[in-house]
Amino acid sequence: MLDMKTIEPCVVVIFGANGNLSRRKLIPALFRLDVAKRLPEKMAIVGCSLEPWNDDQWIEEVSGMLQSRFPGGLDEEVFKRFRARLHYHPNPPGSGDAYQNLQKKLEETPGFSPNLVFYMAVRPSEFPSIIDKLGTVGLLKQNKGWCRVVIEKPFGYDLLSAQTLQRSLYHHLNEPQIYRIDHYLGKGTVQNVIVFRFANILFEPLWNNHYIDHVQITHSETLGVEGRADYYEGVGALRDMIQSHLLQLLALVAMEPPVTLSAEHLRDEKVKVLKAIRPITQNSVHAHAFRGQYTAGIIDGKPVPGYLDEPGVAPDSTTETYAALKLFIDNWRWAGVPFYLRTGKRMAENSSAICIRFKSPPRDLLRHSHRELPHPNWILLGIQPDDCLKMEIQVKVPGLDLNTRTLSLDATYRKSSEEDYDAYEGLLLDVMQGDHSLFLRIDEVEWAWRAVDPIIKVWAMERGFINGYQAGSWGPRGTYRLFDNEDQFWRHSLNPEGGDLQAY
Amino acid sequence: MLDMKTIEPCVVVIFGANGNLSRRKLIPALFRLDVAKRLPEKMAIVGCSLEPWNDDQWIEEVSGMLQSRFPGGLDEEVFKRFRARLHYHPNPPGSGDAYQNLQKKLEETPGFSPNLVFYMAVRPSEFPSIIDKLGTVGLLKQNKGWCRVVIEKPFGYDLLSAQTLQRSLYHHLNEPQIYRIDHYLGKGTVQNVIVFRFANILFEPLWNNHYIDHVQITHSETLGVEGRADYYEGVGALRDMIQSHLLQLLALVAMEPPVTLSAEHLRDEKVKVLKAIRPITQNSVHAHAFRGQYTAGIIDGKPVPGYLDEPGVAPDSTTETYAALKLFIDNWRWAGVPFYLRTGKRMAENSSAICIRFKSPPRDLLRHSHRELPHPNWILLGIQPDDCLKMEIQVKVPGLDLNTRTLSLDATYRKSSEEDYDAYEGLLLDVMQGDHSLFLRIDEVEWAWRAVDPIIKVWAMERGFINGYQAGSWGPRGTYRLFDNEDQFWRHSLNPEGGDLQAY
Repeated sequence: MLDMKTIEPCVVVIFGANGNLSRRKLIPALFRLDVAKRLPEKMAIVGCSLEPWNDDQWIEEVSGMLQSRFPGGLDEEVFKRFRARLHYHPNPPGSGDAYQNLQKKLEETPGFSPNLVFYMAVRPSEFPSIIDKLGTVGLLKQNKGWCRVVIEKPFGYDLLSAQTLQRSLYHHLNEPQIYRIDHYLGKGTVQNVIVFRFANILFEPLWNNHYIDHVQITHSETLGVEGRADYYEGVGALRDMIQSHLLQLLALVAMEPPVTLSAEHLRDEKVKVLKAIRPITQNSVHAHAFRGQYTAGIIDGKPVPGYLDEPGVAPDSTTETYAALKLFIDNWRWAGVPFYLRTGKRMAENSSAICIRFKSPPRDLLRHSHRELPHPNWILLGIQPDDCLKMEIQVKVPGLDLNTRTLSLDATYRKSSEEDYDAYEGLLLDVMQGDHSLFLRIDEVEWAWRAVDPIIKVWAMERGFINGYQAGSWGPRGTYRLFDNEDQFWRHSLNPEGGDLQAY
Repeated sequence: MLDMKTIEPCVVVIFGANGNLSRRKLIPALFRLDVAKRLPEKMAIVGCSLEPWNDDQWIEEVSGMLQSRFPGGLDEEVFKRFRARLHYHPNPPGSGDAYQNLQKKLEETPGFSPNLVFYMAVRPSEFPSIIDKLGTVGLLKQNKGWCRVVIEKPFGYDLLSAQTLQRSLYHHLNEPQIYRIDHYLGKGTVQNVIVFRFANILFEPLWNNHYIDHVQITHSETLGVEGRADYYEGVGALRDMIQSHLLQLLALVAMEPPVTLSAEHLRDEKVKVLKAIRPITQNSVHAHAFRGQYTAGIIDGKPVPGYLDEPGVAPDSTTETYAALKLFIDNWRWAGVPFYLRTGKRMAENSSAICIRFKSPPRDLLRHSHRELPHPNWILLGIQPDDCLKMEIQVKVPGLDLNTRTLSLDATYRKSSEEDYDAYEGLLLDVMQGDHSLFLRIDEVEWAWRAVDPIIKVWAMERGFINGYQAGSWGPRGTYRLFDNEDQFWRHSLNPEGGDLQAY
């Protein structure tokens, strides 16, 4: 999070270079960093995958990736610079000496820096063995330069498996070498929230249980499992989104002000929030969590199948595609304020947002003059599809009588002329700069698993039934039982009229 | 302030019916209330002035006034209804029995209600004698119905004269009969501020010396004395605007939440603020007040004369056309927060606004990543030319680096389709409804005079010199000496870039 630091020369090695993540995100992000002149001159990219390509074939592949991502065409000078960075290392399965060869290439190629980034753009099940092999050939040692390993989520599938995975990494790596990435929590989102909360004096005095009624954190998608059922069947919405992304957003919005924005200070505060989450006992899972699975419905005007009819899904699957949670943070700031977390696939809209509902002011003042009581205030922090900030306040309706209405103060951060950055660009820059602030420390991962583990266990035992919700709706209706009060409801939209029961 | 109450039948008698205020404001306001169906069926309007007109001539006059105010034409049905309300009573100077005749007319005209409103749309010097005569013929007695008297500002020219005037009124009237009008403080402004502060929970926790650095209340006009030098020469900006309007706005923005919005509760809180203003001793006038007088300059691209060259102004006049004050409110909420009040004629813009500057958040957090420190937050309540509300917050500049910029959240209360009401419509309605909440109670008037009396005295003694400022500027430069800190400055505009030294 410390910006504009110098980047030392380095070599970025991408495992799974021919995979989806690499093609769609990593290579384009590196290219755009080169366009923005953020890459050091002596920085090389080594693609590593099963295909028996040579450097030229790889360059051709990359050229194809970039041309499809940037249909407007590539700046010739930048592409010339970028292609000079590209190297390839074939890593066929079963090859005994592939890692020895990789070690030689990295150490002996003229101009290669001894600083190394290994990016694991592969299935989680492959992390331990790749790291073990890298360690065995001595590539993780940091003798001559530094060495950093980037690991994509999920980190384990429950607390125990996360700890097991961690132990296997610790054979070869120490914590500062490990960058556990959560691309959903891109640099922009984190920085927007931090600036909003701490560069203004207007909000921090309100940011507590005196004034806040509850907090809602939502991530909804219109997409279904999209052919990834083999991955999703064993995972579900709770693990896929809540344990990772939504608990990170909760930590960000609920944390105390960090001493500085350094990675350790920031992560210290985030983990304090996760530790303060009141444990959900197995007996209270039903009162605090709700799951659902989409049935056939309509998305964007077109009929889509239910989850059970998706290819690769077991006919009696109870994997949840929707999960909602009520959590309490037992500290001085948040005691008594429920945090509602919700995610789902095949929902009515693509939207990620933090919605903060404030308490009502004392009502006697306007009681006599008002036909209807004023609505409570909301602060809405939109994350996807657009970063935005809205405040809903009550103002007087013009005219001779004293009536109020809701006005939405809309702060769109971005001016239309300003370029949008992808989360990966910032995150790759951070890895090269050695900035951990947006990456998850192992204790964050562990405490996030602790928060959801009891729910995972109870849901795993209840394999007989799961609530359905129609694809294209806002989720199962029963989810409302999580709310304590009648005047609480899910926000479905960041517009003032949005968010009550009308979507059902 | 209690709206939509039934209005009892009544007769509104306008003294000075042929004057400016009556022609431009009162008659059009009454007509528009009739259009809006807010006038009771049995409500009559009696014009009273020096001209020897009869009812028909008066109706013709009124028809002329309305046609010039509503060039789009008058609704025939409404005008038929309105003209039936119109009566005239000639009140020639020196006529011995004019008030006897008025009494007879009011008591004997068939269909006239015994409820009476006397509107003093005349010079302040005439109030006492008119009221004395009305009292002598028994019209102020409230035997059969109620009787209310509306008095325009100024109420006296210092504390002593205000108290003298008040004593003369008390011979015939009790306090609840007296409506001291301050049209500048229209219903819309007061209600906007009250709804903003008390129908939202977001602001009241911030509304104190923990978070607010200082408050600025400005009323600036591009107009000069406009041929009213005979009035203005003895008055000046301090009496004309600050003692009345700006101190009222200060009371509104600084008061504690009233128990209800009833007139007495509201005025109790306002007068508490005025009482808590730290008295300015004669020795400290120079540190707390600044005056100026406009010199020749440019307004709207056209040259305009200086004040001393205006017709009717004494060549050595030191009457101030600009006045600025620093006040402290010595109570628990506001201790240490300066309130800056400022008004001027021939200024760069027509603008009335309350500008609240907040303190800066603790700065260490963004220190390392920032080239420039974030700006402090402002809340801006615009009153003229338009009611509006703006909040200036700091947001992150999109992009890979952590920089902030000011974003102005703009809440324009009014939708373009909504009609604008004139202050007089609401105020006339209030008088007929017997609602005092927007009218000044005598203790408010007295305490406002107490706040400015020491300055009046010192300035009256210093007749040798007054600072000049060019017409069309933002006032004399020396006014900046009122600020305690280098980072404080007058806001000249409600736009984010507005308001520092650029206008000089």
